[in-house]
Amino acid sequence: MAVGFTGLPELLPIRGFRIGVASAGIKTPGRRDLVVMELASAATCAGTFTRNAFCAAPVSVAKVHMASASTRYFLINTGNANAGTGRPGLAAAEQSCAALAALVGCRPEEVLPFSTGVIGEPLPLQKIEAALPQATAALAADGWADAAHGILTTDTVPKGCSRRVAVGGGEVTITGIAKGSGMIRPDMATMLAFVATDAGIETTLLQQLLGSAVRHSFNRITVDGDTSTNDSCMLAATGGSGIEVRSGSADLETFRAALTEVCEALAQAIVRDGEGATKLITVEVTGGRDVEECEQVAYTIAHSPLVKTAFFASDPNWGRILAAVGRAGVRDLDLDAVTIHLGDVCIVRDGGRAPDYTEEQGRRVMAQSEISVCVALARGDAAVRVWTCDFSYDYVRINAEYRT
Amino acid sequence: MAVGFTGLPELLPIRGFRIGVASAGIKTPGRRDLVVMELASAATCAGTFTRNAFCAAPVSVAKVHMASASTRYFLINTGNANAGTGRPGLAAAEQSCAALAALVGCRPEEVLPFSTGVIGEPLPLQKIEAALPQATAALAADGWADAAHGILTTDTVPKGCSRRVAVGGGEVTITGIAKGSGMIRPDMATMLAFVATDAGIETTLLQQLLGSAVRHSFNRITVDGDTSTNDSCMLAATGGSGIEVRSGSADLETFRAALTEVCEALAQAIVRDGEGATKLITVEVTGGRDVEECEQVAYTIAHSPLVKTAFFASDPNWGRILAAVGRAGVRDLDLDAVTIHLGDVCIVRDGGRAPDYTEEQGRRVMAQSEISVCVALARGDAAVRVWTCDFSYDYVRINAEYRT
Repeated sequence: MAVGFTGLPELLPIRGFRIGVASAGIKTPGRRDLVVMELASAATCAGTFTRNAFCAAPVSVAKVHMASASTRYFLINTGNANAGTGRPGLAAAEQSCAALAALVGCRPEEVLPFSTGVIGEPLPLQKIEAALPQATAALAADGWADAAHGILTTDTVPKGCSRRVAVGGGEVTITGIAKGSGMIRPDMATMLAFVATDAGIETTLLQQLLGSAVRHSFNRITVDGDTSTNDSCMLAATGGSGIEVRSGSADLETFRAALTEVCEALAQAIVRDGEGATKLITVEVTGGRDVEECEQVAYTIAHSPLVKTAFFASDPNWGRILAAVGRAGVRDLDLDAVTIHLGDVCIVRDGGRAPDYTEEQGRRVMAQSEISVCVALARGDAAVRVWTCDFSYDYVRINAEYRT
Repeated sequence: MAVGFTGLPELLPIRGFRIGVASAGIKTPGRRDLVVMELASAATCAGTFTRNAFCAAPVSVAKVHMASASTRYFLINTGNANAGTGRPGLAAAEQSCAALAALVGCRPEEVLPFSTGVIGEPLPLQKIEAALPQATAALAADGWADAAHGILTTDTVPKGCSRRVAVGGGEVTITGIAKGSGMIRPDMATMLAFVATDAGIETTLLQQLLGSAVRHSFNRITVDGDTSTNDSCMLAATGGSGIEVRSGSADLETFRAALTEVCEALAQAIVRDGEGATKLITVEVTGGRDVEECEQVAYTIAHSPLVKTAFFASDPNWGRILAAVGRAGVRDLDLDAVTIHLGDVCIVRDGGRAPDYTEEQGRRVMAQSEISVCVALARGDAAVRVWTCDFSYDYVRINAEYRT
C-alpha cells in the first residue's frame, strides 16, 4: 500500500472537459483500460514528454499532432505501451487516433494518443477500436475518479488532486490524475498525468505554466532513476469558467501556485506508491551556487542504493548520506561549512558527524514514514527539493519477477 | 560466494617488497586486521585516491606524505575507516604513521596510512600501536596471501593476481591484492588495492602507468555507484629485478599491458564479490564519438536498478536496456543505427526489438553467470568497457541490516 495513502480525494469536474472510460480487454479482461478525454473546442492544451531518446510511438505521434492542430481528445490505453515497436507501432498509434476521430467527427491530428503497459508487443488495435464507442458514450464531466483507476497499471492506488483557486473575481478549478509506480516496470512503462482547468489560458502561457509546474513536481521525483519511454504530462485549459488567466496579471502567480500544488500532490503520490516503497523521503538541498549543483547533490542522495536501503532499514546511517554529498561532484565544496539534517536532527557539521548527535536521535527520525534530509551547502542562494522513496526487498521482488 | 571464484591464485613475491600481518583486535578479536608493507629504499611509488570530497583522514594524510617524501611503508588497518572523524581523525592517522616510523627507524612522512571499516568511530590508536611490533617482526617477501586476507572487511573471498612479463632481456613480476565488496558497506568503507613490481620505474612514469591501468580497471567497475570515502590504489616499483622499464622503450607497452591485466583481474574480482552478486556483467559500448558518451551509456546501464534486477532474475528484459540507452543523454543519437547484443544475441536493431530475436535466445544467455551487453552506437570510434554485477535480495539484506 502506498505510503500515507488515505483514499482518492474528491475530484472536481472541469467545465468543458469530459471523460469516458471503457474496458477493451487489452491485457486483462474486464479491467478499465481505455480512457477518452474530450476538450471543449475553445480549449488550449500543453504537454511535456519523456526525454528518453527511445520514446514510444504514442509520444512521437502526440508531439506531431500537437504541433499541427489544436487538441480535442486524449486517447489513453493501459496494458500495452506501444514502445520499442518501430514503424508498425507508429502506424498503430496513428490508426487509433483515426478511429476515434472517425467516431466523434474530428480530424485525426486533433487526437493525442497515450499508451502504458507492456513494452515491445504490437498495440491490439482491434480491441481498442471495438471499445471506443463504449468510452465515447460514457463521456461525462464527472468521470475523473473512474479515469484515475482506468489509467493504472501496476500502481496499487489511484492518484488524483483538485484545487479551487480565486482569480479574476471568481473561481477556477484545477483537477488532475496521474499514474506511475516504478519509472519502468518489468515491461510496464510510464508515468502519465492529465490535468485540466476551466480557466481560459492562451497556449504559449499554458505551456510555460506547465513547464514550471512540472519542473517543481514530476521532474523532481525519482523511484529508481529510470526515465520511461512513455512519460507524458498534459494540461488542458477549457475556458469553461469564463475567467481568463493572462500573462502579467496578478492572478497568474496565484494560478501557477495552485497548479504547482496539484502537480506536486500527484508527483508525491507516485513516489508514495513507488515499487516496494515503505517511506517517502524529501531531499532538500539549499545554499548552492546554482540549481544545477543543488540537483546534483539531491539526486546523488535520492538515487543512492545505499542511502535508500538505509531508509528501508530505518538505519540513521549518516555516513552514507555524507559520502553521497561528497561524491556528487560539486567543485570546491567547503566540507567544514556543510551541514546535514535528518528531520530536525543535525547529523553532519564541521566536516564530520555533529558532535552532539546521538544514535537515539537518528533512530527517532528514521522510525517515521515520511522523512526529510536537508543538506545546506552554504555557498549560495539556490535550492532544490526532490522526492524519492526507500529501497526494499519488494523493489527487487517486483522487478525480478518474470514477466507474466 | 563470489561469482566464478576458484581460489586465491599463487601470489609471487616481489624482490624489495616485504609484508607483515598482525591481529590488533580493532573490531574482531583474533582477526588479521593490520598489514605493514615495506618498500625497498630505492623503490618508487604511485597512488590514485578517491575523488569523494569527503575523503577519509588516511587519504588526506597519504597524499601529503607522498608529496613530501619517498615512501617506505604502507600501514593498513581494517575494522575502522577513520572517515567522518574530522580533525581528531587526521591527528590519529598521523600518529599511527609516527608510531610505525619510530619502530622501524624512518621518518613519519615515509609511511602512508590506509584504513577501511566502520565510518565515524575514532581510530583505536593504542590497539594499532600495540600490534605494530608483531607486524614488523613478520615482514617477509611471501606475505601476499596473508595480506590478501588481512585487508578484507565484508568481502567473502580474498583477491589477488600475479603476472610475470619478459622485458629488458629478463623477467619482471607484478603482484597485487585488493579488497572491496560494496563501494560502501553500512559504515564499511572502501576499495583498496596494493600492487608491487620488481621492475625499476621512475616516479612520473610509474604514476602515469598506474593512471592508465586504473582508468581501464578500477575506474571501470561499479557495484552500486557509490564511491567510498577511502578508495585508494597504490603501485610500488622496487627495482629489485635489476631491470628498468623506461619511457619510450619497447618494453613499456608490454609492461603496461601486464599491469593493466593485473588491475583488471583485481577489479573484476571486486565486482564478482559485489554485495549480493550472483552474476558478473560486462557492459561494452562501441562506436561512440568520444569516450565520455560511451561512459555515459555504459554507466547508465550498469547503474540501472531495473537492468540489474532483470539480470538477477535471468530475465532477458531488453526493453530496460533499450530504455537505459535512451535516457543516457547522448545528443542526436540515431536510434535506427543502434544495435544491442546480449551475449551473442542481437536484441535491438532498427529502433526496436530485433525482428529475428526470440525470448528463448535471450533466456539462454541470461542463464549464464557471466554475461556481456554490447551497445554499438555507430557514430564514431570510441569504446568503453565496464563491469558490474546484478542486484539481488541479498544486496538489500546486506545493506539494510542494522549496523552491528
